[in-house]
Parts: sequence; C-alpha cells; structure tokens
Amino acid sequence: MAAGRSFTLGELAGRLNARLEGEASRRVQAVAPLEAAGPDDISFVLGPRYVKAAAATRAGALVAPEGLAGLPGAVLRVAAPQAALIAMLRLFHPEPPVEPGTHRLALVSDGARVDESAAVGPFAVVERGARIGRGTRIGALCFVGQDAVLGEDVVLHPRVVVRNGVRIGNRVIVHPGAVLGADGFGYAFDGQGHRKIPQVGGVRIEDDVEIGANTTVDRATLGETVIGRGSKLDNLVQVGHNCQIGEDVILVSQVGVSGSSRVGNRAVLAGQVGIADHVEIGDGAILTAQSGVPNDIPAGEVWSGTPARPTGEAKRIWAAENRLPELLRRVRDLEKRLTDLEKGAK
Amino acid sequence: MAAGRSFTLGELAGRLNARLEGEASRRVQAVAPLEAAGPDDISFVLGPRYVKAAAATRAGALVAPEGLAGLPGAVLRVAAPQAALIAMLRLFHPEPPVEPGTHRLALVSDGARVDESAAVGPFAVVERGARIGRGTRIGALCFVGQDAVLGEDVVLHPRVVVRNGVRIGNRVIVHPGAVLGADGFGYAFDGQGHRKIPQVGGVRIEDDVEIGANTTVDRATLGETVIGRGSKLDNLVQVGHNCQIGEDVILVSQVGVSGSSRVGNRAVLAGQVGIADHVEIGDGAILTAQSGVPNDIPAGEVWSGTPARPTGEAKRIWAAENRLPELLRRVRDLEKRLTDLEKGAK
Amino acid sequence: MAAGRSFTLGELAGRLNARLEGEASRRVQAVAPLEAAGPDDISFVLGPRYVKAAAATRAGALVAPEGLAGLPGAVLRVAAPQAALIAMLRLFHPEPPVEPGTHRLALVSDGARVDESAAVGPFAVVERGARIGRGTRIGALCFVGQDAVLGEDVVLHPRVVVRNGVRIGNRVIVHPGAVLGADGFGYAFDGQGHRKIPQVGGVRIEDDVEIGANTTVDRATLGETVIGRGSKLDNLVQVGHNCQIGEDVILVSQVGVSGSSRVGNRAVLAGQVGIADHVEIGDGAILTAQSGVPNDIPAGEVWSGTPARPTGEAKRIWAAENRLPELLRRVRDLEKRLTDLEKGAK
Repeated sequence: MAAGRSFTLGELAGRLNARLEGEASRRVQAVAPLEAAGPDDISFVLGPRYVKAAAATRAGALVAPEGLAGLPGAVLRVAAPQAALIAMLRLFHPEPPVEPGTHRLALVSDGARVDESAAVGPFAVVERGARIGRGTRIGALCFVGQDAVLGEDVVLHPRVVVRNGVRIGNRVIVHPGAVLGADGFGYAFDGQGHRKIPQVGGVRIEDDVEIGANTTVDRATLGETVIGRGSKLDNLVQVGHNCQIGEDVILVSQVGVSGSSRVGNRAVLAGQVGIADHVEIGDGAILTAQSGVPNDIPAGEVWSGTPARPTGEAKRIWAAENRLPELLRRVRDLEKRLTDLEKGAK
Repeated sequence: MAAGRSFTLGELAGRLNARLEGEASRRVQAVAPLEAAGPDDISFVLGPRYVKAAAATRAGALVAPEGLAGLPGAVLRVAAPQAALIAMLRLFHPEPPVEPGTHRLALVSDGARVDESAAVGPFAVVERGARIGRGTRIGALCFVGQDAVLGEDVVLHPRVVVRNGVRIGNRVIVHPGAVLGADGFGYAFDGQGHRKIPQVGGVRIEDDVEIGANTTVDRATLGETVIGRGSKLDNLVQVGHNCQIGEDVILVSQVGVSGSSRVGNRAVLAGQVGIADHVEIGDGAILTAQSGVPNDIPAGEVWSGTPARPTGEAKRIWAAENRLPELLRRVRDLEKRLTDLEKGAK
Repeated sequence: MAAGRSFTLGELAGRLNARLEGEASRRVQAVAPLEAAGPDDISFVLGPRYVKAAAATRAGALVAPEGLAGLPGAVLRVAAPQAALIAMLRLFHPEPPVEPGTHRLALVSDGARVDESAAVGPFAVVERGARIGRGTRIGALCFVGQDAVLGEDVVLHPRVVVRNGVRIGNRVIVHPGAVLGADGFGYAFDGQGHRKIPQVGGVRIEDDVEIGANTTVDRATLGETVIGRGSKLDNLVQVGHNCQIGEDVILVSQVGVSGSSRVGNRAVLAGQVGIADHVEIGDGAILTAQSGVPNDIPAGEVWSGTPARPTGEAKRIWAAENRLPELLRRVRDLEKRLTDLEKGAK
C-alpha cells in the first residue's frame, strides 16, 4: 500500500506542529515501525519503553515526545505523540475522496432520498423511504432497507446490511459483512414449539461509532437497541436485542452481549467476553478476555473469569488452583498424622 | 418503525379472542413495554412478577392473563398472554406482503425453477437446477447455488448464501450474512501438509427453522448436516460438518458445535457454548453460557463450566474456589500446629 | 449431491494405484460411510479401529490399507488410505471446470487485470489496479478492492470481500462471507474519546491457505498481517491486525487471535481459543478448545484452560476441583479435631 507520497521533515514539522531536531530538507517516503524502518522512512517513539528499539532503528527520522532522551538522528518533537502519529498516517495515506453519485449499477428505489454529495457503489440497494446524508458512502453490494436513516459522512464499507428502519448518526464507520437490525432472538415456547415473537423495534447507532467486520447488532423487540456515541465494536461481536451500549465503550472481537443488557460509558469488554441478559455493566468497568458475566458489574472495577470475579480475587484463585493437587495430598497427610496422634493421645 | 395502524380495544378483543374490561371504543396506536408506554399505547403483563410495573404504567390498556389482580385501567383478558402478545404484534406490524416475481436486476439461471408466487430480489443469484417454492422470498444480494431446494414460504433476508445442493424446508427464516453449506473443515495431514478432504455431502434444514445473522452451517463430508424441525439458531453460531441438530433446539449466539456431534430435541445451548466433535447432547439437556463440552451430556440435565459439570456441582466448586486462597492458609496453619503437637507428643 | 458418476472396481484400482481383492467388473455408484453404504456404494476403512464397523457394512466394496484383516467382500488395498479416500472423492465429485470469462453482470473496472483463463461471477466487483491470476475464480457477489492481487487457481466462493491492497497467493480457497483486510482495531484515547489510528498496512495470504465462512483477517496498522503457507482457518475465526500466522497452522472455528500475536508453524488452536495480543505461540504447540492464552506458549507443548496451563496440570486441577467442596469439609474437620487435641495436650 505504498501511497506514493513523500514529505520533507520541514513540511512534516509544519503539519504536525512539531519542533524539528535535524535537517528540514531531508525527505521521507513512508511511515514504518522502528524495527522495519529504513533510511527513507520516518518512525515513531510513543514513550520511554521504546527508546531501546529507537536506538537501534535505521529510520531516517523519528516522531517523539518532548524531553525523551537517547534518540538517534533527526527527531520531530511533539506534545502528543499518538495524535501526531494519527495525523502523520493520514498525511501519508489520505482517505480517498468521495466520488459523489449513484453508480449506474446501483439500485436506489424511488422514494429513497440520497444526498447529492453522497456516493452509492455498484450493486448496492437502497430501498424506499431510506435517507442517506451528506458525504456518506454506501459501498458496493450494501443493502440499506426501507426507511433506514444514515447521517453525514458515514462510511459503509462493501457488503454491509442495514435493515429497515435502522437509524445511524454521523461519521459512523461500518466494516464489511456487518449486519445491523436483524431480528432479535425471541421466542415463546407454547408446549408444542418455539413461536417467534415479532421483532418490531429498531436500532440506533449514534455518532462516531465504528462497527467491525461481520459484527451483528440486533433490532429491539420493541423500542431500540442503542450503540452510544463514540463506541467501537471489533469484528464478530454480537449485540442482542434491546441492549443499551453506552458512549465510548470498547467491545473487542467475539464479545457477546445478550438481550436487554446495559454497558456503561467507557466500559471495556476484552475479546470473547460473554454478558448474560438483563445485566448491567457499570461505567468504566473492565472485563478481561473470555470473562463470563452472569450478574451486574460495579462501575470502575476490573473483573475476570467465568463466573467473573474481581480480577485480584480471580488471580489469587488461579494461583491457588495451581497448588490444588498438592493441597489434596497435604490434607491427606494431615489426616493421617492427626489420626496417629489421636490414637497416641487416647 | 411506527406502523401507522391503530385498533379499538373492541377490535383487539375480537382479534385476540380476549375478554375486555374497559371501553370498547377506546383506540390504541402501538404496542409498548410497560415502562415506555403512554396513553395511546397498549402494553402487556405476562405474569404476576410484572404487576408492580403494571401498576405504575401510563399505558392506555393492558393485555393480561385471566385472574391476575391489581391491574389499572382497561384490560384485555386472555388465556395465553404470550400467544396474545405475538398475535397483537403481528396486527400492529403485519409482514409486508410478498411481491411475487423476479426483480429485473436479479439473475435466475436457465434451468432454475422459481414458483410464480415467489419473489427474487435485486442482485440475487439463483443458479441452475435450484428450486424455489411457493411464496418464498429471496432477498436482495442472496446467492442460491446449483440444485439447492427451498420449500414454501421461506424467507431469505438480504445477502444470504445457500450453497449448491442445500435443501431447505418450509417456513424457514434465514437472516443476513448466514452461510449454509460451506465446506466442512476436514484435512488429512500427510507429513508434508494438510490435504483437503473433499466435502461432498449436503445440508438439510427442516421446516420452521430460523437461522441468525452471520451464522454458518457447514455441509457434510458425506451424507448430510441436519438442522431439525423448529430449531432456532441465533447469530454467529457455527455448526460443523455432519452435525445432527434435533428438533426445537435452541442455539444461542456464538455457540459452536464441532463436526459430527448430535444435539437432542429441545436441548438449549446458551451463548458461547462450545461442543467438541462426535459428542452427543441428550434430549432436553441445557448447557449454560460459555460451557465447554468434551463429552456426552445426559438427557434432561443442566450442565455448566469448562469442562462442563452438572450445574449443581459446578456452583459448589465455584463457591469453594472463592475460599481457595484462604484454604491454603488454613492448611499451612494446620501443618504448623500439628508439627508442634507432634513434637510435644514425643 | 449424487454426482451421477460410476466406476468399476477395476477402474478405481487403476486410478487409486490399488491392489484389488475382488471382481474388477463390479460397478459402484457412490462413496458412503460404512454405516450408510449400500451394495452399490464403496466405503473406506482408514485403520484397525474401523474393522468392527466394516464387518457389519453393506458396502459393495472397501478401500483399506494393506495388511488389515477381517474385511468382508471386495477390497481395494492401498498404501495410504486417507490419500486414496481424497482421490476417490475427487473422482466421484470432480471440481466443476472453471468457465473462463467475466460474467456480463460482473463489474471489472478499467485498469484491473483479469487473466483470460480466470472467471468472474455475476454481481462481482473487481476494482481498478486489482490483478486476478490464471485459473482463478471470483464467485458471485464478491468484492475485490483496488490493487488487490490474487494468484493462480484461487477460489473465492460467493460473497467474499478482499479489501484494497490485500495479496493472495496461489491455490487459496476462501469461503462465503469471509472478509480479508478490514481495518485493524486500533484507537488512541485522548481523554475525550477514542481516536482512530489509520490502518494503512496490508494482508498477505500465502499459497494453499483455506479460509472459512464469515472469518475475518484484519489488515495491519503498518506492515502486513500474514497467514502462512498451507494454513487452514475454519469459520468465524478472527485474526487481528499485524498477526503472523505461520505455515500449516490450524485455527478451528471461532478462534480469536489478538493483534500482533505470532502463531508458529503447525500449531493447532482448537475451537473458541482466544489469544491475547503480542503473544507468541511456539511451533507445533496445541491449544485445546476454549483455552485462553495471556502469555507465550512453548513450542511443541499442549496447553488447556483459562488461563492456559500445560494440559497435564490443567487436568489434575480439574480433577482436584471436583473434590474441592469435600476438601473444605475435611479441613474444617481437621481444624476441629486438632483444636480438641491441642486442648487435651495442655
């Protein structure tokens, strides 16, 4: 993915609001990690623990925080190195411009409203009553159902499904294969079989959410399933019907949140975590990978394991488990010695 | 998803075969949960544990079982409240009628047989030899492979893949992104590499099955993978090659069933359960969330944990684990005291 | 999926390089497992543990290793029965020939290079700069992004997404719904929200890899995510950004490998295993189903559980856990008896 762009260190210093230690006319061609960078590349040092790798790098220049010593060669000093890295990656790899218009091989139904600055890719379907906002891109092979509403500057990568009535805010990014608004999983067993409870609610995806590849967010039975502003869902995540996911939440790959559960703002659910239904995860709570959560989790706490416990307890239990076979032997030995002693004491 | 429909309580009483306590001419606009309902909404009380919430509701009317006391306002009394709720949701949110015919932008191969009452959506592909039954809907962007057979009143939501030769019964619902009939995962290691074992069997989906978004059901190596009548699979479920899933089975989201395993009728596998290959899950067995099942499970039992144990045992072990660090200390203390005593006894 | 082919045992002996015990002119119509085979079928006996089932089979003929006694009827004796089974399945179920050419309903952009022996299916999109090699098949409804490179004899089943710049070797098979090259999951929290780190790296899929339905392999932040030669990924697997998956690796269904982890050659990760980020799994290591792996795993070892431990240890712990509630009682009893004894000793 060589972008074919290059910058002088002087240009980069200007763009990144950086202080340059080195030659302004030196030109770099690409961004690369410390280990892989060559003399034509610029690399980055996010903090002290990368100084050792930085000392050995062949990179032509480095982006680094003010005050970090021990760095070789040209350095662009910045106040916030992660923000500078993001800006620099965008300089070298600019987003392709939106080419407005509906592709001749797309199908936009009569009665759908697509802003003239929006783009609809080939073999995409936009059904009647759907609204597509300013600057939004509908990728190839996407499906946008009846009466769905997409805000501004949304990106649907190719082959996303947005079912009928789903509402999506601004600057939302959805990766290929995601399915927003499929029916929730609800049945009533009547003694003969499972009767489907019609799933007639909706889904609301707030601004600045990102949704990973092949992730599924089900529509509500009644009311709405909500993904709050700024939350980020990785690939293959499941969000059940009527869940309320807060703001700036992180759901890592293969997490499953069962129906009607609530996840508080800024909570982090690591990979493969499972949340039971009707559970409440407090604001800022962290669940480590593969945790299984049958009950509410207090705000701000870190929990682990199945069933989840506070991580400190879980770690003590895991350490103790390692000694469990030995403990059985020790108890057997104690019993024998005690019996001997009891006999002697009689 | 306002459906724009409204009914008088008298009309609803007739449709739901209910006994009305209240004013027959009163009109309601929508169905809503007790907490969210307003005076123009009708809500529902499925049993005694919702009476407290019902007492506080602003709903204009309630559907409730005969004999349940303490409910305010107008009440439609029914014998089976869940069935009535389902019927009422269908009244307010009727299924859109099938618009028969093949969309001009669909591709139906010569030699495919599509019933004239069936519908094939835009950019859908139906390959040669495939048969599509009466009233069946093939959504936009679906793929139905060669010689696949779909029964009557099947719904393939947009972007489903049904590979060649897969057989689907009547009234089956498949949600977006599901893949039915991909190759099973079978290789023979010959010392040099993994050689693919051709997966030449099929998949049979029986009547009244529902399959969730992005779920995968693999074809058999030889013979058939079977999903039995009335079973319901949630999103992101994996069913491996040659599995035999019984009737009225529930597989909750992210469950994985490995190759050649059998799941008995009416079994319930909760979220993220994993079943090893060649395992038999007895009729009516329940596996709680995240269970890992290396061996057979007896019919009618409830098991939990990894490796799965009867839930009663698993709960006792989880409770005991909480005391494990303390137990280590107590045993250490016992050893010390016993040693002291043994010295004294000499 | 009856293929309509039949062979005499003499023909099969020739094709499979087998020694025939039986009548060369006898004709068989299909391959079937021992239990399901009838007199017109040929079945197979891969080793001694299937001899009992073979003795009861109704199959018209068997493929079996040289020297295996106790088999009824006609037998084709072979040196490597698994390889013979694979060859025989291919004889009865030959791969459909590639019909070269771009379907009239496909969209191949100007500036994409599609080999004239390749096939592009209906409603597939191949974007500019993409290169499709000799004999490669792009299924219906696939998306191949800008500058993606596919080698020779690749099979993309219907509805695969290959995003821009992804490089795929020769003889790679990708099942429906897989997404190769979606953005990695990377954000920097700046105190206000999660800022997206542009994911500008690529994905490289080496020769002879197979990728399951709805599996996701994310592109690297910088550099490449790599799936090594001959590795096989089952359905619904997640491979995070910058992972390095070695050669001949097996990732069973629903495995998740977090960002920047490395999996050594010939490692096997069973179903639902989760690997943390920046972890190294040694060559030939085996992780049993549902293992959770926070740290490196040594080459050649077998580990289990969460957190993963050597399987021998894990099994001893699981066995000891079964006795944990009883152990608590025994320690309580010891404490009481010891206290009594201590009182007596005073």
